[in-house]
Amino acid sequence: MRSQDWLGGLDERLRRQLGFLIEIDRLKTVLRGTRIADESRRENTAEHSWHLALFALVLAEHADDAVDTLRVVRMLLIHDIVEIDAGDTPVFGGTPAAEQAEREQRAADRLFGLLPDDQVDEFRSSWDEFEAAETPDARFAKALDRLQPSLLNHVVGGGTWTDYGVDEATERATTRRVADAAPALGDALEAAIADAVANGWLRPNS
Amino acid sequence: MRSQDWLGGLDERLRRQLGFLIEIDRLKTVLRGTRIADESRRENTAEHSWHLALFALVLAEHADDAVDTLRVVRMLLIHDIVEIDAGDTPVFGGTPAAEQAEREQRAADRLFGLLPDDQVDEFRSSWDEFEAAETPDARFAKALDRLQPSLLNHVVGGGTWTDYGVDEATERATTRRVADAAPALGDALEAAIADAVANGWLRPNS
Ligand SMILES: [Ca+2]
Repeated sequence: MRSQDWLGGLDERLRRQLGFLIEIDRLKTVLRGTRIADESRRENTAEHSWHLALFALVLAEHADDAVDTLRVVRMLLIHDIVEIDAGDTPVFGGTPAAEQAEREQRAADRLFGLLPDDQVDEFRSSWDEFEAAETPDARFAKALDRLQPSLLNHVVGGGTWTDYGVDEATERATTRRVADAAPALGDALEAAIADAVANGWLRPNS
Repeated sequence: MRSQDWLGGLDERLRRQLGFLIEIDRLKTVLRGTRIADESRRENTAEHSWHLALFALVLAEHADDAVDTLRVVRMLLIHDIVEIDAGDTPVFGGTPAAEQAEREQRAADRLFGLLPDDQVDEFRSSWDEFEAAETPDARFAKALDRLQPSLLNHVVGGGTWTDYGVDEATERATTRRVADAAPALGDALEAAIADAVANGWLRPNS
């Protein structure tokens, strides 16, 4: 990355906004375990976030409690920006939760802190709401964040299910949020899980 | 991609919605001319769309006419889905406009046509509005779609400016929409252009 000195000539607010937008380009280099559908490579977190936002635009009607689509979309677009500093947390296997949570808090402080103060608050409260997973918007957003990788695992015939030798009980426990927040999507996921077990992409319960 | 027969067991509406969401995963494999900020590779259209949606969330206040942020974000998230069938159209160099426009219309018919009928209309009218670039929301969305690649060209010290030997007059003509829709962002872009010329990343006017 070349010198960003030219930003210094802008007014403080716009300088911070553009500095943030350039910094978050790095999310395109954070790799997840999930493969993209053509199986050619792992998915990065920026394109994952785009895909999730489309899930929200298309599937909002299935939320059990009515949701505000813009709020859900905003949460999904920013929910993983902390991975620029904290890295991806694989759903299966991985870092101790407390340690990762602390890393993500520091990442949120630094990254959202690049914005003008009022936007720090706006983005941070949206991220905190997502993490807490208590409001209808956040519960639905979290559900989509569980649904999408499972669908991609099915599409590629294994993916992280195979990588980690996941069984169907573990997969159901991991994705319980989907049925909780959107019963019709929970039913669809159950159909994908059953098909994956039948195809040998997900281990049957022992 | 493995068999999607399991979708057949779902109700028609959800089957179409999930089929669309799986199909558009292919946008992650459409490559643009622009490099990502770390200069390691070209940007794909899915992550580009994510980045633009963040531009809208952060910069909406600079729109000359007030905009509806959700409408702008939705447009930016879906505006390039047609590239799955039609490919990217480089801003500099490239396909005759009429031919590309026809390809994109066919792509919009096929891709948005995967959705349930009411959502076909919703997504198609958002895409048509973006393409027409007449409403305040669409003018602002189009402006961001011009601003982001120019900022990335500056960040990597050339990018598509160098690839196509672009001069500053061509760059200004190509990005005129930015100043038209958001004067403060036009001023910022002008500062980036002047800095790029000074650094030799953009050819001076002859
Ligand atoms: Ca995620």
